[in-house]
Amino acid sequence: MERKIAVLGAGSWGTALARLLARKGEHVTLWGRDRDLLEKIRDRHTNAAYLPDVTLPETIFPTDSMDAVASAELVLIVTPSQAVREVATELSSISFQTQPIFVSCSKGIEQGSGLRMTQILQEFLPRNAVAALSGPSHAEEVGREMPTAVVIGSSDIAVAEKLQDVFAGTFFRVYTSTDVAGIELGGALKNIFAIAAGVSDGLGFGDNTKAALVTRSLAELIRLGTALGGRQETFQGLSGIGDLIVTCFSRHSRNRAVGERLGRGEKLAGISKTMTMVAEGVPTALSAMQCAERLGIDAPILEQVHAILYQQRFPQEAMLELLNREQRAEAD
Amino acid sequence: MERKIAVLGAGSWGTALARLLARKGEHVTLWGRDRDLLEKIRDRHTNAAYLPDVTLPETIFPTDSMDAVASAELVLIVTPSQAVREVATELSSISFQTQPIFVSCSKGIEQGSGLRMTQILQEFLPRNAVAALSGPSHAEEVGREMPTAVVIGSSDIAVAEKLQDVFAGTFFRVYTSTDVAGIELGGALKNIFAIAAGVSDGLGFGDNTKAALVTRSLAELIRLGTALGGRQETFQGLSGIGDLIVTCFSRHSRNRAVGERLGRGEKLAGISKTMTMVAEGVPTALSAMQCAERLGIDAPILEQVHAILYQQRFPQEAMLELLNREQRAEAD
Repeated sequence: MERKIAVLGAGSWGTALARLLARKGEHVTLWGRDRDLLEKIRDRHTNAAYLPDVTLPETIFPTDSMDAVASAELVLIVTPSQAVREVATELSSISFQTQPIFVSCSKGIEQGSGLRMTQILQEFLPRNAVAALSGPSHAEEVGREMPTAVVIGSSDIAVAEKLQDVFAGTFFRVYTSTDVAGIELGGALKNIFAIAAGVSDGLGFGDNTKAALVTRSLAELIRLGTALGGRQETFQGLSGIGDLIVTCFSRHSRNRAVGERLGRGEKLAGISKTMTMVAEGVPTALSAMQCAERLGIDAPILEQVHAILYQQRFPQEAMLELLNREQRAEAD
Repeated sequence: MERKIAVLGAGSWGTALARLLARKGEHVTLWGRDRDLLEKIRDRHTNAAYLPDVTLPETIFPTDSMDAVASAELVLIVTPSQAVREVATELSSISFQTQPIFVSCSKGIEQGSGLRMTQILQEFLPRNAVAALSGPSHAEEVGREMPTAVVIGSSDIAVAEKLQDVFAGTFFRVYTSTDVAGIELGGALKNIFAIAAGVSDGLGFGDNTKAALVTRSLAELIRLGTALGGRQETFQGLSGIGDLIVTCFSRHSRNRAVGERLGRGEKLAGISKTMTMVAEGVPTALSAMQCAERLGIDAPILEQVHAILYQQRFPQEAMLELLNREQRAEAD
């Protein structure tokens, strides 16, 4: 029973998800804006720019035409988070043949509005079911079929269970949840803390320092995430702590890498120029800072990351300020 | 105001703690059983066997005589966990000049009895205050003065605060707690999960797999730890999740290294022969399994680690059994 699925965004994660679904026998349209890249994917059956060394099935159909997704019954949004509004606008003008489900696989919070990705989708596609997919899932490893576990959340559990059936396979485990906000917030906020962990690495601190920082990051993520509408138990799971630790420790993490370069003294502008993919923590630090200020939440790590990125604070100074907070009872 | 402090155990952690305290101006007696090692430490001011490349202050006094600790007002227990009963027995026959505080820095659960280290100390030294020190603190990094944060717990908060004052310094942050059980259980149980994480590494799985495993390890640690008397919030802190993640990801971790070698196909007997230091997860898996069975706690990761270590289960088989449990709602 082949399903028609559209994957919007031909970066590493979009390509890895397209591959996963095509290997399961689905008909997958992979949409992007870079025609040259898409032609290369079609001709060579690999995405050399974003997911090298991984062969793609011939049942992936690359396209730069948004009209080609009109027949999809399932649409994955895998673009950078700050591009989701634009994509949602385009989607809202398409006459779909069925009422597709939209699944956000993008991790971020919109600047200015403070909206989560599924909230943006819902705004433009109010009659469709929406869901979010998140968890510790570096695209490089999913492309190589390393055992991976993720969570799919929808306010309608039947939708989540349907999607579980679509995505699940022997190496790709899928858990369901109804806490869409918690899943999205964990995935978005963790990138900010990965930048902090990278700064610690870049300054030459060790594993002890990073472990202390990540422990406090989890507490801060839960404080911010619950204030923004997520459930505590979700942050304890795969899309919270699971994704946080992999992003803070893995060599695959772009956000950690940005932090490491900042810690070594590079400036954000210079780093951004040399990166082919967006490090989502950079815009999300701005959105999250707006949210934290609006709600009056204590978020010292976010504050320091924000100051390093946008206020020219020296990383060394920021890290010392974090490490040298008053010593007290742990539960305070 | 120099204090007389005895550190029992001249392994890497005992040596790093002795150095820390001596550098703060305390008079430190470093006790061990290996006379040859202690003489070398005295002559060369370094512990080449267990903490190489770190210079030790001349105010550390190595000794193999237990009588030399009689003048101590503070005694640190830093031996392997399964040797603590023997050391406590010896301590109980010493006529101390004052009533010293005993601080357990050993991480384990006694086999058979299921007792925590401070419980053993209290059994033999019922009139003395006891405390536990734990947290993400690889000795190698403390020896190099990398920023590190730990927790010290005592049922008497005044004792914990006194110890905070003794240990705290610019690179060594100390938080206090009254949850001695939680601090000790986190430190002991995490070593079992580090073996599991190492097995995943040894089998060639990636960061996604390990992140999923560590996420479930934390849930299992909390389940076991609260059933054994610790508080949930302690397991969310430095001595729980903080120590768990550093032990599962750091190259310094002996327990992770044992797991990695098991995952690559080596047998426990062979690994043990080549290790100069005890990997505490190995005996603790046995003690914890006894506790879990007695209390009827669901502990699938502990079960598989126990089976690999003591029942010849193949690591590949154990890991697949963990990864292929039924897919369901995450909160189940």
